[in-house]
Amino acid sequence: MPVCEIISVGTELLLGDILNTNARFLSVELAALGISVLRQSTVGDNPERLAELFTDALSRSDILIASGGLGPTADDITKEVCCKVMGFELVIDDEILAGIESYFITKNITMPESNKKQAFVPLNGTVFRNKNGTAPGIACEKAGKCIILLPGPPRELVPMFNNDVKPFLSKYSDGVIISHTVRTFGIGESAMAELADDLLWNENPTVAPYAKDGESLLRVTARAKTAEQAEELCSPVIRKILDRLGTYIYGIDVDSLQQRVVELLTEKGLKVAIAESCTAGYTAKRLTEISGASQVFDCGIISYSNEIKINLLGVSAETLEKYGAVSEQTAIEMAKGVRTLSGADIGIGITGIAGPQSDESRKPAGLSFIALSDVNNVSVEKLETGRTNDREYNRYVTASRALNMIRLYAVKS
Amino acid sequence: MPVCEIISVGTELLLGDILNTNARFLSVELAALGISVLRQSTVGDNPERLAELFTDALSRSDILIASGGLGPTADDITKEVCCKVMGFELVIDDEILAGIESYFITKNITMPESNKKQAFVPLNGTVFRNKNGTAPGIACEKAGKCIILLPGPPRELVPMFNNDVKPFLSKYSDGVIISHTVRTFGIGESAMAELADDLLWNENPTVAPYAKDGESLLRVTARAKTAEQAEELCSPVIRKILDRLGTYIYGIDVDSLQQRVVELLTEKGLKVAIAESCTAGYTAKRLTEISGASQVFDCGIISYSNEIKINLLGVSAETLEKYGAVSEQTAIEMAKGVRTLSGADIGIGITGIAGPQSDESRKPAGLSFIALSDVNNVSVEKLETGRTNDREYNRYVTASRALNMIRLYAVKS
Repeated sequence: MPVCEIISVGTELLLGDILNTNARFLSVELAALGISVLRQSTVGDNPERLAELFTDALSRSDILIASGGLGPTADDITKEVCCKVMGFELVIDDEILAGIESYFITKNITMPESNKKQAFVPLNGTVFRNKNGTAPGIACEKAGKCIILLPGPPRELVPMFNNDVKPFLSKYSDGVIISHTVRTFGIGESAMAELADDLLWNENPTVAPYAKDGESLLRVTARAKTAEQAEELCSPVIRKILDRLGTYIYGIDVDSLQQRVVELLTEKGLKVAIAESCTAGYTAKRLTEISGASQVFDCGIISYSNEIKINLLGVSAETLEKYGAVSEQTAIEMAKGVRTLSGADIGIGITGIAGPQSDESRKPAGLSFIALSDVNNVSVEKLETGRTNDREYNRYVTASRALNMIRLYAVKS
Repeated sequence: MPVCEIISVGTELLLGDILNTNARFLSVELAALGISVLRQSTVGDNPERLAELFTDALSRSDILIASGGLGPTADDITKEVCCKVMGFELVIDDEILAGIESYFITKNITMPESNKKQAFVPLNGTVFRNKNGTAPGIACEKAGKCIILLPGPPRELVPMFNNDVKPFLSKYSDGVIISHTVRTFGIGESAMAELADDLLWNENPTVAPYAKDGESLLRVTARAKTAEQAEELCSPVIRKILDRLGTYIYGIDVDSLQQRVVELLTEKGLKVAIAESCTAGYTAKRLTEISGASQVFDCGIISYSNEIKINLLGVSAETLEKYGAVSEQTAIEMAKGVRTLSGADIGIGITGIAGPQSDESRKPAGLSFIALSDVNNVSVEKLETGRTNDREYNRYVTASRALNMIRLYAVKS
């Protein structure tokens, strides 16, 4: 089995300005490819120290994957140092230069001379085009050793790794590892783990529970000689999980709750409209992350004050007075109001207190009410996160709960 | 100035099961103490590899701070390896043993025999009590070199560092490091770096350019004996940057563009209302990330279809027919419409194509128009990101551009 090291380059990492999410992403992906990660290292933008690290790491490991330091400025030195250590000559790549130039033309900016630096690539190296930025990725291979250089921004690194580096690395990988992710909503990690308890002791496939942002998931991972054999190992275990977790599961290998919601609404030919107070656009923003969301969503109202709730959504002043803006009753009237206003099949009303401060009602931050209305019925759910001090989390999980209500409605439609 | 390395021990880090937040926390704290971090390294729970790393790192650096591997199980080997490398003998500490025993008594659990291992400490070493767990922290000093071992769980590491390790390290600390971040919008990283070119070669303070999510920033970092002296070094450089970058700069040491926008609108007593098409709630979501946003924002309309643009915002069917939904004219009518509807001082209208597909107009994905209307005037900006394939980026920077237009309006009000 080949041995790999992950190298992160950037003084901002040594100063703690940013969290190193690339090292974690690469570790997970390399494990899935059956490539062992021996060490992760981080150094600053310093040519001597980076050269020393590359040389040491090559003496221990077969593959080095470095990220960062491919930018246009003078302190971006990863490519130059790698080529020096590996003995590769840097030459200009006209196609990449043209790509960088056209990137600036579409942005209506004159290309700074310094950006030309990014068009230099190692002679006889492998180049990975960057569809999300100007720095190409690079691989230098020599005498059984390989250094791969990737851009630092995760937005550029992640798609480049998935699309180009994974296939490139397949020749180093021994056998295959197949992984499936079962995603749930509405059940905690420990409750989920208890329902799947015996499976967590499996050796092949392994079953591992994770929790993130108010969701729980199980990752099923099998190793085998071929993909078919690995899939055969996974199937019966996934069937058991489906039996035990039922409608808590919103998807297998789907990216997100919102992806599943858009799929389901499209399939059922339903449109949803959303009135949001505390989440203030977060639910609509997440739904519209999915390309094609315009088929199922065309109207959102953010009613951050009582006046807007009354004037736009037709919430009654009496309801607001009697029960308060953060109440079942207000959520219901918001859901009905936005449905009527938009002509959608389903209306969602969300009202709550994101925190960190409570409002004049003294209800706790983290409390919210979410209502779903169709032409005949209305239902409402109460959510209490218990995290009074976490505005971002409260807004996120409130939006998630609304998305999950839409999902469960669409499943039954 | 003493030089330090951060060492994280744990196979779970190499597998990517957890994110290394300890390395970032320690980096920030050490920088603030004036101790340079030369390298961060992560290795698994393997005695030979850890010994090799300790030995190499000691040859480069004065202080090593290692976290993880102090637990009670057989694969927890950090303390044993450290003492072997440094030549310290491990002896049982009766007070720590009593502490561990009483920890289990209060939790009503019989102490597993293996936990006794945690009561061994290096003879002539320094011990840091753990108030949040059973593994004590440890420092071994010899011949001008020092290894500090801390427990892995952040819940234990963070308070131990703050309460015990910081005072312990003060004897190694030589002066302080102060850092300020100048954040800009509307100028690319290389263009910004060219304007500040001569400053980038400064040695104290250093000036370093960064780019992230369509924004560029400069970090100014000074080292000095005292905080006052460091601030004195920073001031003239920051003044030069302010002169050169002018209104591109939205703030110094502020968290985000939206934070500055909420501050400015609050200061000027202005309210904004937002009509969004392609960003579909993203702008409102970002504005309302800031606690207190309800003072300056109470109405958002997401009009994802022509019908909603016509019925709710009063965009004319003729405009949509003649110029298309993605046009200057439509953006302007959206901005005017939402301002009138809400009674806000400023109305924002955003329409564009997020991608990856274009719409029936065949205009390119990444194109958007953003209009700002007040009672007397209206202005409109065109944005072309050139990234047809990056829906998230296009939506994010379009929202950023809208926030920046609000900022520039409020600055002049």
